[in-house]
This record gives sequence, C-alpha cells and structure tokens, in this order.
Amino acid sequence: MTIGILGAGAMGQLFGARLQLAGNDVVFIDASATTIEALNRHGISLTTDGQAEHAPARAGTAQDFAEPLELVVVFTKGFHSAAAIESIRHLIDERSMGLTLQNGLGNAEILAKEFGAERTWIGITDFPADLERPGFLSTSSGGKVRLGPLTGGLERETDDLAARLNTARLNATSDPAIHQAIWEKIAFNAALNTLSAVTGQTVGEIGSSPEARRIVDRVLDETTAVARTKGVTLQRDRVESALENAFTRHKDHKTSMLQDREAGRRTEIDYIGGAVVRLGQEAGVPTPVLWTLSKLVLSAVS
Amino acid sequence: MTIGILGAGAMGQLFGARLQLAGNDVVFIDASATTIEALNRHGISLTTDGQAEHAPARAGTAQDFAEPLELVVVFTKGFHSAAAIESIRHLIDERSMGLTLQNGLGNAEILAKEFGAERTWIGITDFPADLERPGFLSTSSGGKVRLGPLTGGLERETDDLAARLNTARLNATSDPAIHQAIWEKIAFNAALNTLSAVTGQTVGEIGSSPEARRIVDRVLDETTAVARTKGVTLQRDRVESALENAFTRHKDHKTSMLQDREAGRRTEIDYIGGAVVRLGQEAGVPTPVLWTLSKLVLSAVS
Repeated sequence: MTIGILGAGAMGQLFGARLQLAGNDVVFIDASATTIEALNRHGISLTTDGQAEHAPARAGTAQDFAEPLELVVVFTKGFHSAAAIESIRHLIDERSMGLTLQNGLGNAEILAKEFGAERTWIGITDFPADLERPGFLSTSSGGKVRLGPLTGGLERETDDLAARLNTARLNATSDPAIHQAIWEKIAFNAALNTLSAVTGQTVGEIGSSPEARRIVDRVLDETTAVARTKGVTLQRDRVESALENAFTRHKDHKTSMLQDREAGRRTEIDYIGGAVVRLGQEAGVPTPVLWTLSKLVLSAVS
Repeated sequence: MTIGILGAGAMGQLFGARLQLAGNDVVFIDASATTIEALNRHGISLTTDGQAEHAPARAGTAQDFAEPLELVVVFTKGFHSAAAIESIRHLIDERSMGLTLQNGLGNAEILAKEFGAERTWIGITDFPADLERPGFLSTSSGGKVRLGPLTGGLERETDDLAARLNTARLNATSDPAIHQAIWEKIAFNAALNTLSAVTGQTVGEIGSSPEARRIVDRVLDETTAVARTKGVTLQRDRVESALENAFTRHKDHKTSMLQDREAGRRTEIDYIGGAVVRLGQEAGVPTPVLWTLSKLVLSAVS
C-alpha cells in the first residue's frame, strides 16, 4: 500500500524520501508543476549530516493518482490545507490514516472532515530541512517527531504509526501530551514569528530588545489563557526556555513568517497568531496584543 | 519686552519670524549650534503662499540670554521639554507666560512647574511649516491656532494672548474646549503616527488597508476611554473625519513619527501613544492595542 505526502516542500520531500528509502511506496502530491517535474525527473538527493543518499520519487497532482492511500502525511501551508485535502478525497478510504505535522492550529480539524476524527493523527517535528531546489535537500539526523491521535485512545495504532516512521529514521514517539506540545509550539511561533514579521527583526534582535520581550510575555499570557479554554495546560517555562535558546543560538535567523513577508508571499498568520485570536474570541478570552500583531502582519502584507 | 521661542525647528521659526515681522522683539532659544549660527547670520526667509518676506533673527542657547521673557512659546520635541524649560528658568519671572503648541501629552504640566499653572497656556496649531534648511521655510496663510488656559478661567488674558498672536497673522482664537481639541489631536496622532511608524506605511496605505483601519478604530476606542478619565469627552466623529480627510488628501504623506524612525531619530512615541497608555494605567483603563503599538515603535527604533 501507498503512503502519500501532501505538500512536497522541504519537509514533505524529507519525509517522503526517508519513507521511500525505507522501502515504502510513496507518492508526492503537490500543486506545483515545477516541483512535480523535478521530483519525477531526478528523484530526491538527500544529504544527512553530510552523508548523501538518493531516493526515486513519484510525484503528481491529486488527479494523477487513483490508488487508495494507507497513510497521508500533510505538510501544506495552512491556507492550502482545506483545498489540498479535498483534492485527495478520491484517494482516501475507510482504512486511510491522516497525519498532520503542519505548523499552526486548525489543520487537524480539516483532516478530520475527510479521514474521520478517529483516523486523524497530529504531531510536531523539529527536523531541519533545507531545500536548495526541488529534489535537493539537506537535513540532520537529530530531529524528532512527536505524535498522538486527535481524539485520544488509539494507543496501539499510534505506536504502530510511530514504529512505521522509525523504520524510516524519523525518530517518532507517541506523546500522550501531544496537544500540550502543539500548543507550546503555537505559543513559541505566535510570539516569535508574528513579532518578527511585524518588525522585520531577527530572532537575536527580538531577544535583545526589552520592549520586544515584553510583547513576547504578553503573547505567552494570551496564548496560555486560550489554551486553557481547550483543556490544555501550557508549560510556560518550557516555552520560555525554547525562546531563550532561540535568542542565543539562532540570533541571525529570520523566522519563516518574516521570510514570507520579505518575499511578498502570503504568511501563515491566520493559522498561528490569528488562530489563537479566533479561538480566544469564541471562548470569550481577550487577546488584544496578538490581535494587534496579527492585524499588523495582514496590513503590511496585503 | 521680549518673546522667547523655545525650540527653533520649523514651527518655532515660523512663529518667531511672524512675531518678529509684527514688530515684537523675539529671541530663538535652541540647543543646535548649526541652527543658532544660521539664524543669527541670515535671519529667516519665509515664503507664505509664494510670497517672500525676511525677518532678522536673534538666536542662542538659554545661557546666551538674560532678559526676562514676557511670553515663551514652546516647540521642542516632547522628550526635550523638561530640560529645555529648566534651562530658561533664569528668563522666567512672575509676569512670564508659557504657551505650549507642542504635539502630545504632558508638556503643559512641565511648563506649569516653571511658569505656574495659572501662567501656562495650551493650544494646537495646524500651520504647515516646511523647513528647507535653518532660516529658509515656507508655509501657507491657512493655518490656525486654538488656545486656552491650562487651568480654566483667565478669559481676558487668553483673549489678549490670541490678539497678540493675531497681529502676527497667526489666526489664533481662544477655545473654551481646548482640552477636548488637544485630546482629539492626540487620538488622531496616536492612530496615524504610531501605526505608520510601526508598519512603514504612508497615510494613504493605512487608509486603504481594512486591517489597519480596524487598528485605528481600536486606538480611538482606547484614547476615548482614557480621555474620559480626565473629564474630556472626545468627539469621535470629528477625529474620524479628520482621518478620512488625511486618507484621501494626504495619501503620500509619511507621518513625522515614520520620518523620525526612517532617519533613525528618537520618536515622540512616549508623548503620544505611550502617554495615553501611561494615563490609562494610572486610571485603570486598559489600552492593550496602543501598548502593543508603542512597544513596537520602541523595539524597532532602539
């Protein structure tokens, strides 16, 4: 049976190449003709800690495929999720599993519409994936995947899914607190990506500005309060040490949202800071700082 | 008796030149040696609606003068007010009147410390003043001055002060609702200057962004609420039509705060948006949107 990678950007290519190299039958589903052609022609050249490997790749749009997919790993940008997942409806049957490792909030609910909530898995990953051009990427072996079922329970299926990823050296573990981990990543990104997209500052510049750090504090306050309305207790000290680590070790890094803004591309603001604002509004929790930052990102890019 | 102009920037030079041309003895007090030298050497060449005039000018630092000043019109940037007014303490006696036509909040209180509250006048002006270089500026005849006493009462003195300015073609009127007018200007500037300094957008870009306009709305909400704690009822429709006018007629304008930011100069944020936040905190009125914008300006410039 076949594994589908939905969204063949850097992360999609990394996961797909690893799964293909581990002996799985993988298809890459993307909307970009350039990416599809490059993958079909050259496969994927993957460099891990300086070690080169090559995986053949089969790529196309959703319409190019007909066989049901056993597992779909979703990596599209948040604003493409709904259309992308609808486009593969004909490849999903009652045995298909969906796994979103995307950034942001709201993707799992979109997957659940097509896969069913009890066939939807959520997770986060910190693998680096540096795409030189389609089909040529580098990574390290140090990344991890943490995952869990959207709805709870399903321990055996989750362990099987993690084991499957681990045969492809994807260092996956089943995390009973996966919702908490996702919200902590959201808090991190809501603070750092949103702020950097507004100010144009690097991670180090944010870390060394007392004013920016006060905004970060308020974003964490607001995100913690909204997470609580979803029954999730965000461990603020963990988010803060992840931020401190970024401030000191990734000083010159520009967040993906700032890179998107500088390139004039649409950002994922609606799925990160904007999603926290929306959930806050639904629950009656005020999020005025994130509201302001999110509007500023939209105002500056539109 | 002598009139002092404290802060010989564009507005200071305009007011000083007009008062000098109307037969007053004017001294320009500034901290910039370049400005002082230029004014002393060339006087002021003033072009009003294309019509040229020339006024001699006597300029120096506070220490260069000894005679008591009958009237001091203050035009320094907010963050220089306290030091500037302290520096002319030896020129102030019990008959001296202080008039601040500065932008922002908090200047009148600084004047009142030296002049006494009952010798302090406040006001706003919308004269354009375009400074090509020190001593060369252009304006139009269409500007106005509205003024009133800081503490109320003092109708006769206020009318006399307005009359005095009017002999110098400064179109001054005594405005019984001067506090309201000042707060409406604060609301206008807190929305437009602060937002443009954060986003880098022109007035027209702000006006054409629905997201930016929603931020403007929230800033007006917050400023209205803080003004109310000071007993001032802000007429929101007047502020909104001033903003609409700016959006349509001054599309390409960059606010002074954006110009300051782009030039790497210190901004007046602490005296505009930041002052509203501070007064809000004192009164227990939340101003999270202005708080965020103010911190962003400080973070981006520092």
